[in-house]
Amino acid sequence: MALPPAERLARLRLARSENVGPATFRDLLDHFGNARDALDALPELAARGGSKRRLKIAHPADAEAEITAIEKMGGKLLVLGSEHFPERLATLDPPPPVISVLGDISKANGKSIALVGSRNASAAGRRIAGEMAEALGAEGFTVVSGLARGIDTAAHRASLATGTVAVLAGGLDIVYPEENRDLQKLIAERGALVSEMPPGTSPQARHFPRRNRLISGLSLAVVVIEAALRSGSLITARFALEQGRDVFAVPGSPLDPRAQGANKLIKDGAPLVENAADVIAALDTPLGHRFREPEPPSYAPRAASRSETDQDSRARILAALGPTPTPADDIIREAGVSVPELRAVLLELELAGRLHRDPGDRVSLLPEA
Amino acid sequence: MALPPAERLARLRLARSENVGPATFRDLLDHFGNARDALDALPELAARGGSKRRLKIAHPADAEAEITAIEKMGGKLLVLGSEHFPERLATLDPPPPVISVLGDISKANGKSIALVGSRNASAAGRRIAGEMAEALGAEGFTVVSGLARGIDTAAHRASLATGTVAVLAGGLDIVYPEENRDLQKLIAERGALVSEMPPGTSPQARHFPRRNRLISGLSLAVVVIEAALRSGSLITARFALEQGRDVFAVPGSPLDPRAQGANKLIKDGAPLVENAADVIAALDTPLGHRFREPEPPSYAPRAASRSETDQDSRARILAALGPTPTPADDIIREAGVSVPELRAVLLELELAGRLHRDPGDRVSLLPEA
Repeated sequence: MALPPAERLARLRLARSENVGPATFRDLLDHFGNARDALDALPELAARGGSKRRLKIAHPADAEAEITAIEKMGGKLLVLGSEHFPERLATLDPPPPVISVLGDISKANGKSIALVGSRNASAAGRRIAGEMAEALGAEGFTVVSGLARGIDTAAHRASLATGTVAVLAGGLDIVYPEENRDLQKLIAERGALVSEMPPGTSPQARHFPRRNRLISGLSLAVVVIEAALRSGSLITARFALEQGRDVFAVPGSPLDPRAQGANKLIKDGAPLVENAADVIAALDTPLGHRFREPEPPSYAPRAASRSETDQDSRARILAALGPTPTPADDIIREAGVSVPELRAVLLELELAGRLHRDPGDRVSLLPEA
Repeated sequence: MALPPAERLARLRLARSENVGPATFRDLLDHFGNARDALDALPELAARGGSKRRLKIAHPADAEAEITAIEKMGGKLLVLGSEHFPERLATLDPPPPVISVLGDISKANGKSIALVGSRNASAAGRRIAGEMAEALGAEGFTVVSGLARGIDTAAHRASLATGTVAVLAGGLDIVYPEENRDLQKLIAERGALVSEMPPGTSPQARHFPRRNRLISGLSLAVVVIEAALRSGSLITARFALEQGRDVFAVPGSPLDPRAQGANKLIKDGAPLVENAADVIAALDTPLGHRFREPEPPSYAPRAASRSETDQDSRARILAALGPTPTPADDIIREAGVSVPELRAVLLELELAGRLHRDPGDRVSLLPEA
């Protein structure tokens, strides 16, 4: 299914417009059927959500320039619904609206395992990551990680020959960390680099959760190798569970703070793994939470099929929302509205910069600017 | 319930007689109701089992001497069925026929946790054991261990002030290991030393499994702290599971051979614990295999109620037995006999030195001497 070039450009513009996150992008596509109509409706939707000023909508020339920049690097920009968009990412809830890829991403559609862990990993932790990545590669698995120092670096290096995918927090053209300059180039040549961000984006703290979500999203399972409590690796593990992926953990001494996150995962029920053989055995266990590949929903363009939300429902939804993150299901019950009605009002609020989405499908109202 | 002195002496003699292990001791008591009648029957039973020579039966003077020796040390000899015999040991299948105790064993009837692990423990492992023992003691738990180097030593030291019980593989009067001479004395004064062996017995390799069985038997749960694959600590863990006790394990790096046994236990389903709080929480979990204290069976003396096994049943049991360890249930089915019939024949064979009992209630025939 090839996406018409105009719709592809419109989807990229929609994704790069102000206040359009993955959930709003998906809801806009659902609601309008195509990005062209959604773009046209953005100003009115934002105004209805309470925005006092004009929403910044991405300019067609800027979107064209992004596509050109990526193609000049030898990469590809893939919008949701286009032919080679990784199926496993299209089934995420919500899926990433746009990814750019340098290298061959097709391997990530097969048997992929994410290896994640601490930046300041111990020599033992790096060795475990390297041995596990190499052995998984020998068994035909693609290794997915985040190109950070420590565990990620060891995992990528050991799987360069067999298949490795690095998800970047910044743009494809940004080298980060600097010490991995050569490795990043090698992965682009032999494996694949993936990013949700436009070229030129420097990785910042707020980008890492989105990167982590793609690492688990591309994988059948996530192995946490060394991770402190409250670490990015545990965030990846949480995403993995929300996405229905398996989470495995490599234990360590209770006296090593780098082991506490992984040990906690095991306490919470994650299978303990010591090596690739354990990972493969755990994937095959009938009692495991083995991820069953769902059919990705269709993101093919279609004509708009708008249903209006009446002012009364809108008022009840606003009354049910507050500064405390609340499950969307509770809002639906309290306001007595349908899922499409709630979604329509939430996306207006998000476009107006008044909504915050939390993990677990919870939403809260931000104070008016 | 006080045991008459004559029956107490007879039980000690029975326990110290040739080829009388804990299972045979229990079966003889079940069969004859009292040790006096069992002792009288021993020669005939052994002959019926195929013994060509006279069974060595413990002399009354030797049994008296054993009791005197222990009382001179300030200790007590407790035979199964006597007043202060620890209830948790009386419920074992089979229970130890005789224990001797130096110190106050009564605490082991309450909340006891066994901490076991490697002799050549790491400094980190010893620290974990010490901190866990101290914190468990502060919460009112008695710590049970085996007085070996490493983990055991750290656990006993840290619980001297709150309650500690050491089970010895040799006699109460034998200091082992030599480096723990002072600690052994302190435990006798402030906690308790327990042994199944008569005074003067040097600990030998074959004694350690029986020691390990009492360590788990005295405890609600066993915590394995550092243990290699195929270590004594894993034997203790296996006994614990057979006895219905909880088994918990402290994880370690997969690259540390001392962690592999504990990690394997976690893979096999043992809860991962990092500290005393985790142990207490795991004990309380409704999904845990929490040990429910059963009522101990009565080992009060009674008159003999012998039922004879006919020659035909005996022949069928012998035909069903062979050099391969076979579950007792299979023998019962194959030979078409009752449980009491099988037990009677097995104890004759054991007294004749022709039977070997394996864990899991399996038995095999030894070649005739």
